Amino acid sequence: MTPPRLVVPDPRLDLVLDRVVDVPRELVWAAWTRPELVCKWFTPAPWKTVDCTIDLRPGGLFHTVMRSPEGKDFPNFGCYLEVVPNERLVWTDALLPGYRPAEKPFMTGIITLSPAGKGTRYVATVLHRDEADRKRHEDMGFSTGWSTALDQLVALMTQG
Amino acid sequence: MTPPRLVVPDPRLDLVLDRVVDVPRELVWAAWTRPELVCKWFTPAPWKTVDCTIDLRPGGLFHTVMRSPEGKDFPNFGCYLEVVPNERLVWTDALLPGYRPAEKPFMTGIITLSPAGKGTRYVATVLHRDEADRKRHEDMGFSTGWSTALDQLVALMTQG
Repeated sequence: MTPPRLVVPDPRLDLVLDRVVDVPRELVWAAWTRPELVCKWFTPAPWKTVDCTIDLRPGGLFHTVMRSPEGKDFPNFGCYLEVVPNERLVWTDALLPGYRPAEKPFMTGIITLSPAGKGTRYVATVLHRDEADRKRHEDMGFSTGWSTALDQLVALMTQG
Repeated sequence: MTPPRLVVPDPRLDLVLDRVVDVPRELVWAAWTRPELVCKWFTPAPWKTVDCTIDLRPGGLFHTVMRSPEGKDFPNFGCYLEVVPNERLVWTDALLPGYRPAEKPFMTGIITLSPAGKGTRYVATVLHRDEADRKRHEDMGFSTGWSTALDQLVALMTQG
């Protein structure tokens, strides 16, 4: 008996970016899991990702520092929950590394990758705890932001 | 290279119950993961656990309802993070099933089981986000409560 699917996005609470990109999924996976690559595409320009630490295992740290065009730094601390190479990456800021409950939970991110021709179907699902947080994320520019970042990932991983 | 241990309890923030019990770890595991057994030992009498639902996989639901001696029900919703049969069980109420951030995060629980003669070394580690939550849990009777519940587990699993 197949267990029910665990994550069924709720349009009231969640945001989804679903695209097919011309990059093999192994390269998309590398872009998400190698700190030196994350720093090159993760934030839509003129924002920058100036630091990244990755301890790629359930319970491990996913840390980034985003810098605004004005030079202000915004650190993010998350904890990986699922790590299935080339297929599925789940992390949350509701927990710190080692699974300690965090002070200000906002989102859980789920990246799923599946083959699509020579490229990849890329689905980013972001779960929030309530409608207010979903709306806040939308107003921060989720849709354009995550899509532009994905364009940067594609450009990075296909450059000669 | 061995990665660093993920969870090193912090005495300011965490609570630990570390005991050796005369029950093989397969039976301790069963007591923690079969709803009909959980209902029989999980809450120190005269409190009762009147309902339990378990979807035993990372991201799955761990739900209990505790009933006070006065008949008031206290439902708990948690999400499993690690499920290693007979060895390690991790869940948190910082996330709902499917990893959605929860409204009121309080704790992450880690049960580790290892062989000790014919019995089991049982270590329950409970992580909190701050000292206030650790103290609140202590004042709720963590030490006596979890220890009495463990006595009930042992009695249940060794009865003829």
